[in-house]
Amino acid sequence: MALIVQKYGGSSVADAKRIRNVARRVAKAKDEGNQVVVVVSAMGDTTDNLIKLAYQVNEQPGDRELDVILSTGEIVSSTLLALALESLGCKAVSLTGAQAGIQTDSSYSRARILRVDTKRVVSELEKGNIVIVAGFQGVTQEMDITTLGRGGSDTTAVALAASLSAEICQIYTDVEGVYTADPHLIPGARKLKEIGYEEMLELASYGARVMHNRAVELGELYNVPILVASSFSDSPGTIICKEASMEVKNKARGIVYDTNVSKVTVVGVPDHPGIAAAIFEPLARANISVDTIVQNASINNITDLTFTVARNDLIKAMSIVEPVVKSVGGKQCVTDSTLAKVSIVGTGMQNTPGYAARMFRVLYEQGINIQLITTSEIRITCIISEDRVKNAVQALHQAFELEKET
Amino acid sequence: MALIVQKYGGSSVADAKRIRNVARRVAKAKDEGNQVVVVVSAMGDTTDNLIKLAYQVNEQPGDRELDVILSTGEIVSSTLLALALESLGCKAVSLTGAQAGIQTDSSYSRARILRVDTKRVVSELEKGNIVIVAGFQGVTQEMDITTLGRGGSDTTAVALAASLSAEICQIYTDVEGVYTADPHLIPGARKLKEIGYEEMLELASYGARVMHNRAVELGELYNVPILVASSFSDSPGTIICKEASMEVKNKARGIVYDTNVSKVTVVGVPDHPGIAAAIFEPLARANISVDTIVQNASINNITDLTFTVARNDLIKAMSIVEPVVKSVGGKQCVTDSTLAKVSIVGTGMQNTPGYAARMFRVLYEQGINIQLITTSEIRITCIISEDRVKNAVQALHQAFELEKET
Repeated sequence: MALIVQKYGGSSVADAKRIRNVARRVAKAKDEGNQVVVVVSAMGDTTDNLIKLAYQVNEQPGDRELDVILSTGEIVSSTLLALALESLGCKAVSLTGAQAGIQTDSSYSRARILRVDTKRVVSELEKGNIVIVAGFQGVTQEMDITTLGRGGSDTTAVALAASLSAEICQIYTDVEGVYTADPHLIPGARKLKEIGYEEMLELASYGARVMHNRAVELGELYNVPILVASSFSDSPGTIICKEASMEVKNKARGIVYDTNVSKVTVVGVPDHPGIAAAIFEPLARANISVDTIVQNASINNITDLTFTVARNDLIKAMSIVEPVVKSVGGKQCVTDSTLAKVSIVGTGMQNTPGYAARMFRVLYEQGINIQLITTSEIRITCIISEDRVKNAVQALHQAFELEKET
Repeated sequence: MALIVQKYGGSSVADAKRIRNVARRVAKAKDEGNQVVVVVSAMGDTTDNLIKLAYQVNEQPGDRELDVILSTGEIVSSTLLALALESLGCKAVSLTGAQAGIQTDSSYSRARILRVDTKRVVSELEKGNIVIVAGFQGVTQEMDITTLGRGGSDTTAVALAASLSAEICQIYTDVEGVYTADPHLIPGARKLKEIGYEEMLELASYGARVMHNRAVELGELYNVPILVASSFSDSPGTIICKEASMEVKNKARGIVYDTNVSKVTVVGVPDHPGIAAAIFEPLARANISVDTIVQNASINNITDLTFTVARNDLIKAMSIVEPVVKSVGGKQCVTDSTLAKVSIVGTGMQNTPGYAARMFRVLYEQGINIQLITTSEIRITCIISEDRVKNAVQALHQAFELEKET
């Protein structure tokens, strides 16, 4: 008998009808002879509505109380799914994060899971129950309720799968899997049968909105195979696992893009030790994530420094950077919010410089100017004008033959 | 420094504005130098809405899951009150029933409190926090969530007050206190300054809808003084305590009525041992509460038996009683749902037969026929026609001089 963990997102449990649909899918997995643990998110808009309520009584609600109120959203959907399963004649029991043994540190609103005490879940499975766990939440050693932040329910699911040595963690969502490119943009985009953890991490970081990185990292760490598939169809989805089969090696795997990019160029700062630290340390303290950083070669000990931030961080970033630049005698700061990142990702590109050259040539042939370049071992990213993104992704998708089945 | 427990009902925390109002009242109690524990009910319609959701996914939702989903209502209002207090600059922390140590048996939907482990509440009070506890809920030894049934939040408040040896338990609600009669019916009805536990129990059982009996019984058992007052005004309310002051002894204290009465008369059953048991045992098994029972003197070993039940129990009661009556050779069952109970209550009436005689005379003078009579040590109840209730209460209120201050 296999043990599987399933997770259903907020849109999959948005109303009673959808919850009954999810119940039928869960019941099927159980009927096929599996032990089933299900993690659910809050119904549709519940979380937003609870946040709104909190702001009505306090303009700056504290994290501890906010976590308690938000945790109720997933508790409600978990009990409703248990009830829907009971009405199908299945034995089911809902557990809160605390009851399911999800033990976290006490960083409210973005708690990290320290360990999972699986005793209760195991005992309920042994009684023949389907176990429904409220996602996104945990409990500190002092029994205080915490939430896990973005991607929290995915993280709950993978952490449970790892602790229970589940055969697979199935993430059911409103997309059908991981594609070679955004299928809304590229009609010929192909759904991948499988993809490696590292590739998925790069895809997610550079624009794919399928799953949060945290859950993928956890899956990699404990080697939990993760299926991403739709809760609204029976289409097979994509498996995220340790290593793609040998035959798909030596290939680019996907093209992603992200338009949430602002570029900041600091012009004419003295090229001496400590300048970069003086600029980037205060940004880090302000919790602003800096992405690409490029420094030009120095001429007469004067250099230019360019970096990118998310667009909604730009004003805050400038308020920090401008005084610093002034104080070190820099000339000016120039910003540009009309840019986008386009990336190709694939373990097959490792140590294969030809991929980068091919990417640059494809963009050149389209007349697309490359403003910045950044690479990892399995990713090449170019920053280009936002209005050329569709053009770039289409040309790259074709050039790297991603439409073809491997 | 005094420790007080306050409880606010659902209408007192129905929206953000009312929650902020409650926060100001709580803050005032704290500012006056008290340690404050607050118990809250769910906001207005929350409980009804959660029940509706549950029925949308399961026509016969199980008690365990229903308790979990209902418990979220009080958790939400407790965090909102904590947030509202924080925005007033008060240190506050919300606790779920489980966190507050409310340990119950596992009778879902009507759990009884077994003990209160006050460790966490005490430690939060010692840190200078106002402690907000989600009412109506507890947790079993196995860490399963339970709810306490009717009057649950009042019971939570009195149980906490008893366990913490609080100076007083203040129940804030949408009425101003306990009156000598329903003030909507009797304009001259007077709010009582204080009333004994026993008197309050009789008033509540026989028609006053101020507080649930369970909380009053608990208050009596642990000798916790209970204040009932309005959360919308600063009017002083009524204290329920061990014994009303000496000067108010030897008096009727209040008139209550209840129109939720159906009478069942079983005509012509044989008068031999076991008949009453044969009728009332199956009613008890069906969880139907039988109120007044009267058996007429037997003539030729044939007797009549009359009892009352709540109106919504009548059909079920008849479906149980009719076959039994038939099987023992009884003639017929007659029902009447046009009746009401009118009661006078007061410890002052103990061993004072004059009160009963006076009540009967007052009703006689009004031309009101008495169908049944039942008494306790501190209560006399007459069952009369429903359409004479107002008349009866007015006449009795005047005859027993309840408008006069003692």
